This record gives sequence, structure tokens and C-alpha cells, in this order.
Amino acid sequence: MKNSVGIVTPQTLHVRQPLQMVSGSVLPEYDLVYETYGQLNSQKTNAILICHALSGSHHVAGYYEIDGVQSKEAGWWNDYIGPGKPIDTDEFFVVCSNNLGGCNGSTGPASINPETGKVFGPDFPIVTVEDWVNSQNELRQHLGIKQWAAAIGGSMGGMQVLQWSIAYPDAVKHALVIAAAPKLSAQNIAFNEVARRAIMTDPDFHNGRFIEMGTTPKRGLALARMLGHLTYLSDDMMGAKFGRELREGKLSYSFDVEFQVESYLRYQGEKFATKRNFDANTYLLMTKALDYFDPASHFDNNLSAALAHAKAEFLVVSFTTDWRFAPERSHEIVKALLDNDARVSYAEVESEHGHDAFLLPNAHYEGIFRAYMKRVIQHVHSQEVAAP
Amino acid sequence: MKNSVGIVTPQTLHVRQPLQMVSGSVLPEYDLVYETYGQLNSQKTNAILICHALSGSHHVAGYYEIDGVQSKEAGWWNDYIGPGKPIDTDEFFVVCSNNLGGCNGSTGPASINPETGKVFGPDFPIVTVEDWVNSQNELRQHLGIKQWAAAIGGSMGGMQVLQWSIAYPDAVKHALVIAAAPKLSAQNIAFNEVARRAIMTDPDFHNGRFIEMGTTPKRGLALARMLGHLTYLSDDMMGAKFGRELREGKLSYSFDVEFQVESYLRYQGEKFATKRNFDANTYLLMTKALDYFDPASHFDNNLSAALAHAKAEFLVVSFTTDWRFAPERSHEIVKALLDNDARVSYAEVESEHGHDAFLLPNAHYEGIFRAYMKRVIQHVHSQEVAAP
Repeated sequence: MKNSVGIVTPQTLHVRQPLQMVSGSVLPEYDLVYETYGQLNSQKTNAILICHALSGSHHVAGYYEIDGVQSKEAGWWNDYIGPGKPIDTDEFFVVCSNNLGGCNGSTGPASINPETGKVFGPDFPIVTVEDWVNSQNELRQHLGIKQWAAAIGGSMGGMQVLQWSIAYPDAVKHALVIAAAPKLSAQNIAFNEVARRAIMTDPDFHNGRFIEMGTTPKRGLALARMLGHLTYLSDDMMGAKFGRELREGKLSYSFDVEFQVESYLRYQGEKFATKRNFDANTYLLMTKALDYFDPASHFDNNLSAALAHAKAEFLVVSFTTDWRFAPERSHEIVKALLDNDARVSYAEVESEHGHDAFLLPNAHYEGIFRAYMKRVIQHVHSQEVAAP
Repeated sequence: MKNSVGIVTPQTLHVRQPLQMVSGSVLPEYDLVYETYGQLNSQKTNAILICHALSGSHHVAGYYEIDGVQSKEAGWWNDYIGPGKPIDTDEFFVVCSNNLGGCNGSTGPASINPETGKVFGPDFPIVTVEDWVNSQNELRQHLGIKQWAAAIGGSMGGMQVLQWSIAYPDAVKHALVIAAAPKLSAQNIAFNEVARRAIMTDPDFHNGRFIEMGTTPKRGLALARMLGHLTYLSDDMMGAKFGRELREGKLSYSFDVEFQVESYLRYQGEKFATKRNFDANTYLLMTKALDYFDPASHFDNNLSAALAHAKAEFLVVSFTTDWRFAPERSHEIVKALLDNDARVSYAEVESEHGHDAFLLPNAHYEGIFRAYMKRVIQHVHSQEVAAP
């Protein structure tokens, strides 16, 4: 398989160190599921952390083996991670963990609460971007890595990278903050709230105890995903991809699916709620963590002050048609970094794909990404030379 | 009550002429509920038709008397209609009817189907903008009006005005198309589809037979309204109005309402679904009519050709922060009119209020509106002089 990391296997770190969470809750112990690709060098200076977005997971590249057969679906950023790819696994040791509160193996609302012997469900504590970064830091220590050569993330992943640079300034050499924002706008929060209401008002939600009740709030999850997906796409891209094209060629004058765009969105919603079986409580937690993220709030709403102690070098990337986290939101980050005379590169990439662009092939984006990662490689190599 | 049309009373026109609908269905007879303000002049040349938007009704100005007491809430465009207001009831005879398929008195899904003696519910035929205009034309004839001095509408109302100018070119002297679009974009349709799914997947929807089942799909309706409302507001305006302000002053780290914007949206959704008791089938019909509207589709997707036989003079108005029907959508209409050398005025009004701006006080908007309506008054007066 050319340019692929091939078959990958998740690992689990069981952390026995209690996690003091921002909400005031304490998680006495927890699992973090993660994958790694490439080889950690002897000085452990070539490690890259990938932070995932709302519906992502630790499975960021390569393929799983299921019943001896390689799965068809690759990890979610397989286009950008592998031998010879922008995040080159011939050079780097790549690490990605499933966020705490997730539903792909790390401890989350669908896990058993060891204190009660029952599923956490709605009792899983509210988790924040800060908590995620603190738990990822346990993984960093476990792997014996002093400093990430780079921490990289898009969307919610970009927020985690920002937080890494603030909370652990010495542990991040390069921070790649892609299609992100320093905090959600009122409109962003409003979209999250509609999605949460869709889940929470689904009669199958049972106040979050749906697993105990032997059901899942599929309708609410599907609606949340349809709405989310809608905001990831640009109006232009939807126009180009679907226009007003009809599924059956002519209007049916009924409430059946008629336009291609309806068919596409329903499919996305149903796939997420049934085939993927995403945990509804995880969806709620992730959107809430997004709403809460606002590092400037601890610094009198001054983002420059929040970033004053960051030591990383930054690459900030935005996409022209991203209206969820528009280029203006990246400008806020760049400006705050420049206020601190940080070393920052910024690119506004022309794309018709809206917020989703950060996941998709794009020559300009790939060029920028590749060029910047070359710089990260050079840094890694320069350290090798400098070593005694 | 200064500048108010005062207490108003709806009237009902029962149309016995069968309505041949675009879908192929025939409605053998139907009611249209309407209100009028001001006096029709002897030559019947001063009549103005107002067309309402998705959640609007025939109650466009003035107040109702309930149990001998004047209601607190005025009609939905009371700011713009009344003595001395832009649509001056000292000069004009203003008419507005509830759209067919509506839930405010005109025949719709909540009405009794005379053929079965039961509520129509989901059996009410799919209604289109063309059908609305054709039914409004019955009202025009009933009132003995040869030509509307102006037909005026915002959003979905603007689409009806466009359709009036196409279908009945001699019956409209001035057409005011405000915050509208010549057809929905794929994104617009997608938002409608999410709203419809919210309603149709609510277990209380019962395939549209909720009235027979003695219930209403309140959860779905509230979600649909929250989402609709979100798209009517601009990101800037939500930022200015709500920012990231917290309802209780501090984060609760729970799924309770925390941000002001959440509280606002939930209130809007619940008000619509419970207090106002909007019919869910009507909501579905209205969004479907929006999706279907595409006059150019009958002319090889050429809007200029669709408007070639329109005889009205046009005022087209858009609002800078309206992302539902952005100024570019109004440009399409203006361009098509100019292709036909129509007499058209166009204004792009600076406003922070998004799509909702067409309903709200705004000095620039009011100035344009007032100036244009003066021209309409002059036309009415010139006809009086010209009369034998």
C-alpha cells in the first residue's frame, strides 16, 4: 500500500493519576486509547501529536484489520499522514489519542464508572479543552517525550493545540492551528445548542441514561449531525455539488426526499447515528467543551495576554469559504501571536469546501503543510547534530 | 393610538371556484382569511397587497380586541403600516390574506376536509407559491380591484410578489421585493430539510395525524423554529446582542442553559411550539413551497426570460448581513429585470440584523420605503386626475 502506514492497532494507556478537572470534578483513573505511526527516534525528539475534532477519533491514519481482512475505510486524516506525506511517518513518530469523554475507547460516558459498576451516562463530568490537554500530557510523559516536535489539529483539534501552547509552553516546539478559532461566537454556540436540544428532547435520550434503557436517541443524533454537517460545508460548495438537482429527476410534490442535498444530509445523519453508533452523551460533551473554550477569559478577555507565555512557533491556516470558523477568527489568533512577537506563519487557503476543507486534498494547503513540516524535520535533525 | 390602524377584525372569503394546484391536486373550495386597513377609493386604484412570510399571517397591522380589551401585540409589520407610515393607510387600502395551507384561518392542514369530515392533516395537498398567488387573485377579484397599486412582501412574501408580476402582469403596478431570492440555494433547502426532519421524526408527529391523536409535535416544532431563527439573525448581531454572556454570570458546568443566546433560542422555539401553537403540517408545507419556488425553471433556468412579460415597476431591497437571502440573491433579480429594461430601483441597506432586518425599524430602509411609496401615491393620484 503506497504512502500508507498500513495496518494499525490501537493501544491503551491506563492513567492511575487522578485528573483534577476544570469543572471541579475529579476522575480518579481513566483510559486513553491512542495510535502511533512511525518510529520514535532515540532522543525522542521526532514526536508529533495530532488532536482530533468533534466526531474524530485516535484512528487518524492507516487501516484496521478486521477478521484478518484490511478495513476499507482509512483513518480520518490518512491523506496527510504516511510515508512521504506532509506528516511524513518516515521522519516522525505520530501520536493521536481519543479525547477523554469520547466514545472510541477512551473513558467516556459509555464506559463503566468503577465507583458504581454502572455506565457513566450523564454522570460523566463536563470535560473541557484544558482537561483534554492535561490528560494528553499524561500520555506524553508515559511515552517519555519531553517536547512534541509539533502539535497539530484542525477545528476543535486546533483549540487543543492552542491550549497546549498556553498550558505547556516547553512541551510544544511547533503548533499547527488549522481552521480553528480562539473561542466560539454566539452563532457557533447557537448551532451547538440546537444540536444538543435535538438530542436531549429525543424521547429515547432518557436524560442521558439511554444505554441503561437499552436504546439510543438516534433521531436526535441524526438531526445534530445533519445540522453539523450543514455548517461544515460552504453555500458555494453545496451549490456546486448539489445545486437544486432532483433525486428522481422531477418533483414528486410530497415530503419524500426530493433534492439531492436532502438525500445527502439524511444519509450523513443516519450513518452517524446508526452505523457509526456515536454516543449521544459524547456529542453533548464535545459541543459543550467547544462552547467553553475561551483562553482569553482568564486574562481579562485579552488573547494576546493568554498567549504571552507560549513558546511554540506557529502555523495558522484558514480556508476562504469556512463560515463556521471564518478566516477572521484565525486572524484573531495571528494578531495575538504577533502582539507577542511570536514566530508565526499564516495562510488563507482558497477552497470551496467550507470548514471541511481542512480534511480534504488541496494542492495549496498540502504545499503549505509540507513546507512547514520540512521546517519541523530540519529542527529535529538539527537537534540530532547538536546532541552530545 | 398614534400612527396605528387601531382595532382590526379579520374577514373570510369563501372561494367556491375549485383551485387547480401546481401539484395536480384540486381544492374544490377554500377559505381565505384576510384583513384590510384604510379605505378603498371609488376607482379602486389605491389597493396594496401584502404577502406574508413563513411564520407570518394576515394580521399585519393594528391590534385585536380580545374580551373587550385591546391585545398588546400588534400585527407583524405594524412598524411600516398605518397613518403616516411608509405604507400610509390614509392613502392606501391595504390587504393581507393568510396563505392557503396556513394555520391562522385560511384553509390548511388543521381545517376540516369537507370530503371526509375529518381534519386534513397530511392529506392537505402540497401548495406552491404559484397556488398562493392564484388564490390571492380570487381575493383581488372579490374585492373588485383591477390592479394592485403595489404588491409588497419580504422573504417568502417577496417570492409571492415576484410570482404576481410574472403570472398577472397587468394586475401589479409596483412590485416591492424585499429580502428575497429568485429560488433557494442548496444550503437554504438543507436548512429547511433539517427543520422538516426535526418535525417529522418527533414521535408526536404521527405521520402528520397529530391532531387526530390529540397531540402536537412540540419538540420538533421548537427545534425547527430555533434553527429558523438562527438563520434569520446575523453572526455580528448575535455577537452584539448576546456575545458569550452567561445567564447566571458564571459557568455551571452542566447542560442547563448557560449562555444568553441559548436561553433566547429556547424561548423562541418554545413560544412558537406552545404559546403560538403553529401547525406542524403548515410549517412543512411552507418550507416545501419555498424549496419549490423557481420561476426560471419553466424558462430553461433563465430568470430574465421568466420576468420578460412582467409589467410592474420594481423596488428590490436587500440587507448587508442577511446570509439567508444575501444581497447577491437580490442582485440576480435586479439583473434579470434590467435585462428586460424594466423600471427597477435597488437598495442594499446597511443593517446588523440579518434576514430579520426587513421587519425591523431602520432609518435608511424606512427612508427608501417611504420615498418609493410616495411614488406609488403619485401614481394613484395621477390616475384620479386622468379618470373621466
